[in-house]
Amino acid sequence: MQLESRPVYTGRVVRLDVDTVRFPDGSTGELEIIRHPGAAAIVPCASDPHTDRDPTILLIRQFRYATGGLLWEIPAGTLDPGEDPEACARRELLEETGVTAGRLQRLTSIWTTPGFTDEVIHIYLASGLTAGAPSRERDEFIEVVPQPLSQVLARIRDGEVRDAKTIVAILYMAGFVLKM
Amino acid sequence: MQLESRPVYTGRVVRLDVDTVRFPDGSTGELEIIRHPGAAAIVPCASDPHTDRDPTILLIRQFRYATGGLLWEIPAGTLDPGEDPEACARRELLEETGVTAGRLQRLTSIWTTPGFTDEVIHIYLASGLTAGAPSRERDEFIEVVPQPLSQVLARIRDGEVRDAKTIVAILYMAGFVLKM
Repeated sequence: MQLESRPVYTGRVVRLDVDTVRFPDGSTGELEIIRHPGAAAIVPCASDPHTDRDPTILLIRQFRYATGGLLWEIPAGTLDPGEDPEACARRELLEETGVTAGRLQRLTSIWTTPGFTDEVIHIYLASGLTAGAPSRERDEFIEVVPQPLSQVLARIRDGEVRDAKTIVAILYMAGFVLKM
Repeated sequence: MQLESRPVYTGRVVRLDVDTVRFPDGSTGELEIIRHPGAAAIVPCASDPHTDRDPTILLIRQFRYATGGLLWEIPAGTLDPGEDPEACARRELLEETGVTAGRLQRLTSIWTTPGFTDEVIHIYLASGLTAGAPSRERDEFIEVVPQPLSQVLARIRDGEVRDAKTIVAILYMAGFVLKM
């Protein structure tokens, strides 16, 4: 239970607070917490994942400063204030890949790293795709690299895909939608 | 490429910096980054996962202030300065569950949320377990709840397990070690 919250820094995306907390045993302590508006992520599937056993996935290759280089990811982005996660998923898919989704299926939602942030990512499966032009933000460096699901799974197995939301999304889809 | 790094806050676990960065196209900008020492997480498997098709997993139920309640997770914890991830995995497994692992197999490593932190979690599969007494930290509230892998998978499918590292670890193990 929160007893007090002391704002330390408010940034462009995240906010850092130091909260005084009452723990389940009645004791109290201080915790650092990064408050985040939440995000949506999308597995863009170029064919119907319910009938095609090895659908083409629009993976992206993105520059991530925090990792020192390029990462394999699925499209994703932060919720605008008051934005519905599904609307955010459609918007980010369009902005990052230029693609519009005919059908969006919610897979799950994840706490990215609950030891120090309240960030939740809502994960969707997109199909019935229509191609268009992306409109990326100034500091986004993204290349769209379509590839079969089997190749994405091999990249996860071999440790080449290391982004948590991407691994969750692809393995969730393979295991529980395609039942591979 | 980092041009400058301005420390904003140094906490108990995380540090917040605002870096001035040169992007791949030559432009520059500021990025908030949470610097984290990294972590290790462990899937504790009470029987041999290479022969038992439905091994018992020592899942934990943990109070996480950032999420407002209890989360299903696998044991995990932050690397001590200079600590080897495998040594950290053994230490955290012992501290949180009281269990010593006979065998540790590295599964993969993940970037938890690379948009704003450099945190990496190294994930291990532990088997050949010997029971003992846990020694938890003052602000850790953890209950060990052994359950069959099939039940953990059902909890992931139904959205009851929402911690990213836990989903990655269990689905990676089910898909690539047990080849379910």
